[in-house]
Amino acid sequence: MEPLPLARAFTLIEPGPVVLVTTHDGTRANVMTISWTMVLDFDGHFAITTGPWNHSWRALVETRACVLAIPPAGMIDTVVGIGMVSGRETDKFARFGLTALPGTTGPAPLLAGCIANIECRVREIVDPWGIVVLEAQAAHRDPALADESLLHAVGDGSFTTDGARLDRRAAMRSKVPPGV
Amino acid sequence: MEPLPLARAFTLIEPGPVVLVTTHDGTRANVMTISWTMVLDFDGHFAITTGPWNHSWRALVETRACVLAIPPAGMIDTVVGIGMVSGRETDKFARFGLTALPGTTGPAPLLAGCIANIECRVREIVDPWGIVVLEAQAAHRDPALADESLLHAVGDGSFTTDGARLDRRAAMRSKVPPGV
Repeated sequence: MEPLPLARAFTLIEPGPVVLVTTHDGTRANVMTISWTMVLDFDGHFAITTGPWNHSWRALVETRACVLAIPPAGMIDTVVGIGMVSGRETDKFARFGLTALPGTTGPAPLLAGCIANIECRVREIVDPWGIVVLEAQAAHRDPALADESLLHAVGDGSFTTDGARLDRRAAMRSKVPPGV
Repeated sequence: MEPLPLARAFTLIEPGPVVLVTTHDGTRANVMTISWTMVLDFDGHFAITTGPWNHSWRALVETRACVLAIPPAGMIDTVVGIGMVSGRETDKFARFGLTALPGTTGPAPLLAGCIANIECRVREIVDPWGIVVLEAQAAHRDPALADESLLHAVGDGSFTTDGARLDRRAAMRSKVPPGV
């Protein structure tokens, strides 16, 4: 993995991909599949929505740290599998053959094989919505995977991958922040 | 347009498409382009992130109503154009040849030519993040457009369209809510 400038981290979340969220509760790492994410600004703040029904919630709240890992479309069956079992009963890293790499800023691990990993700390939890405001601390990308297709969840059990890329950078130049 | 069951409205936002947000300030309708959106639950609650720098903000806060319109990928140049000018100086409906249809629950208009339109009321604004919590009141889809590709913003001025659709409904059946 190589560093991904924090100024560019939002370009991995803005397209709306499925995200794998890792945590570590001090004993064991865990990972959940989430599609409910949002960019909050160009300064590395993001929101995710989750709640106490997810086993990851306690580690997220207590350690105030997580990693947003962006899986390539080829990981779809791992992504679905992770979403269908709970870390309460299952060591998902063992079950799905995931490789955890140490984070550089907190306890949550990076996920090998993902396009990018964004290490975050929890800034705020907005009740009663389960909105967790995150602040990116560091980001990494796998240059071998950086051009891979993202995976988008429809919510009915089907997913879309990225199709054609349409370039409107010239028309949008004045709105794109520096460093992107 | 035909009714879109509210139980299915989240399936239009969960994949992370670019959204056109309409408002009406009592004098004139306006529309802005937004990619910073998130599903909050299966009961029709959504979040968008925006702020007072957008001309739509005042109408959104004062009328507490907006419509989330989901444009098909073919509307890309309209989507970009809407994002590059302000409703402060421009009647965007006239400028971009948009057809406003009356909303059924509030002052914000529906946008003809979009895959779906979700009429929302503002439930809460979460400072200082500019997170606007919305509650869907009604939703409509254009059956002629319902299978169109969505548009996803990368944030650097480029966009992706939907590619292959991958069906994992059998594997995910126990997690998909009723009515979806």
